[in-house]
Amino acid sequence: MNSYDIIIIGAGPAGLTAGLYAAREGMKTAIVSKDIGGTTNSILMLENWPGFTGSGSQLIKQMHEHLKKYEIDFIMGDVESLSKKGDSFSVKLKKQEINGKTLLLTTGTERKRLEVPGEKELVGKGISYCVTCDAFFFKGKTVAVVGGSDCAATSAIALTNIAKKVYVIYRGEKLRCEDINSKRLEDAQNVEILYKAIPLEIMGDEKVEGIRLKVDGKEKELHLDGVFIEVGSNPLTKITAKVNPKLDKEGHILVDENMKTSIEGFFAAGDVTSHKLKQVIVAASQGAIAAKSASSYIKNKIK
Amino acid sequence: MNSYDIIIIGAGPAGLTAGLYAAREGMKTAIVSKDIGGTTNSILMLENWPGFTGSGSQLIKQMHEHLKKYEIDFIMGDVESLSKKGDSFSVKLKKQEINGKTLLLTTGTERKRLEVPGEKELVGKGISYCVTCDAFFFKGKTVAVVGGSDCAATSAIALTNIAKKVYVIYRGEKLRCEDINSKRLEDAQNVEILYKAIPLEIMGDEKVEGIRLKVDGKEKELHLDGVFIEVGSNPLTKITAKVNPKLDKEGHILVDENMKTSIEGFFAAGDVTSHKLKQVIVAASQGAIAAKSASSYIKNKIK
Repeated sequence: MNSYDIIIIGAGPAGLTAGLYAAREGMKTAIVSKDIGGTTNSILMLENWPGFTGSGSQLIKQMHEHLKKYEIDFIMGDVESLSKKGDSFSVKLKKQEINGKTLLLTTGTERKRLEVPGEKELVGKGISYCVTCDAFFFKGKTVAVVGGSDCAATSAIALTNIAKKVYVIYRGEKLRCEDINSKRLEDAQNVEILYKAIPLEIMGDEKVEGIRLKVDGKEKELHLDGVFIEVGSNPLTKITAKVNPKLDKEGHILVDENMKTSIEGFFAAGDVTSHKLKQVIVAASQGAIAAKSASSYIKNKIK
Repeated sequence: MNSYDIIIIGAGPAGLTAGLYAAREGMKTAIVSKDIGGTTNSILMLENWPGFTGSGSQLIKQMHEHLKKYEIDFIMGDVESLSKKGDSFSVKLKKQEINGKTLLLTTGTERKRLEVPGEKELVGKGISYCVTCDAFFFKGKTVAVVGGSDCAATSAIALTNIAKKVYVIYRGEKLRCEDINSKRLEDAQNVEILYKAIPLEIMGDEKVEGIRLKVDGKEKELHLDGVFIEVGSNPLTKITAKVNPKLDKEGHILVDENMKTSIEGFFAAGDVTSHKLKQVIVAASQGAIAAKSASSYIKNKIK
């Protein structure tokens, strides 16, 4: 069975940066992932990685190329489960099992989809799951935010400064957000909140042209340039069940400032963690910190 | 007097990334600095910024170009002092004073120099102030670490895995480091510790060739490929005296995970903060987080 100093699960910005730092620390390193890049690949135009302009997948390609200079085993596949035996971690894939002195989870999150017609086809063509990433494209345009959480509300508030008009489409009768954000949305002159509103279809051929929805039982169509879907996201932690690290109430892995989880030798970085700012640059930084912490952890054990 | 939503002091990776995020948040943004890039400019080969290979100054140039797409006032000059008047911060330069609703300090640190002949001339030509950045260049080579702190010791330990031979040059009689690190250094087969050793000159024309030093009163020369100077660094916080944020015992600005200092509306990011891992990618991430925090701070005040 192959043994590593560190097994990194996930190959987005956190995992790739961790791989870079781990290899440079002289650690025997494996990166296990079903793809290279994760959700970053879906960013059409990544404008907030300093010094870079291009798509998310272009940045990932550059990172991947960078890592080829180092001895890192890339193992492409789905992880079925993780376990800890004594001081060692075991990572089980379909056809093999590998061992690691340390484990670093960088599996990210999976955005919840609306599951309506048109959604899949128009992602990156006017449909976005990230206001921070993409709001700027909708300067002076008409957009909708679907969702009623605080996250949806703050997304809509952020858009009021950029877009001409912002619809908030929410199936409930009252936004599930902080009072202050609710008040801000009501006060904003270019916001219209549609309650008891259920999206039926996102319309458009080449790009988003509008949304068809049911508002309080009646069908309605809105002309739109963009739709931000903010119905939540799920951190991808299912494989950690047996190792059982502490999670926050939304299911993110709890980490300290050194990216340590509650389990000795087990680290996490990127969107799967409890850190609030889900950004490529933050994930990469966390990957670097986690790799350094894992390296220190091993050095401290070999006394 | 010019007024800004955020005044960022310093234009290294933390300051530039903060500027990018602040501008994208729609904040009226100023970056005040005596140069663009700070200590990052002195990194000959930056190999641990994921997806990039080149010098530190090349990365800085790319970041600077990136920021030109946004409305950001770059004010080149030395800040003389900062002060807080009510809810507003004042930044005093030689010829002007500007106001900010928030302030972000990203002034970094200044590495302490040995102040010996040859040092200034050979920086980046075999002399380095950063083992994490540059150790890899000395694979199989002979190097010295100057210093006796825990930081110097861990630097030397890291080098034992990469270099052929590592000298530790320290003026004292006992390393000022954790026992465990001291023991590791003594145990390492390729380490030689010179106590009561005072560097007199770093020798070399195009690149480092050796060091002349006095060991226990006797002059001695070592042939070397590289010298790591680890005699400490000073966070650049002098201008904050009047605002008086809480510092750690080494004088770094104490920040929480959102980059807030102990003073309302005052944020810090990068090497000037108390975070242990002084890396370009970490500084950039902290800049992003700080700008987002400053934006939230302003939004929460305008109720």
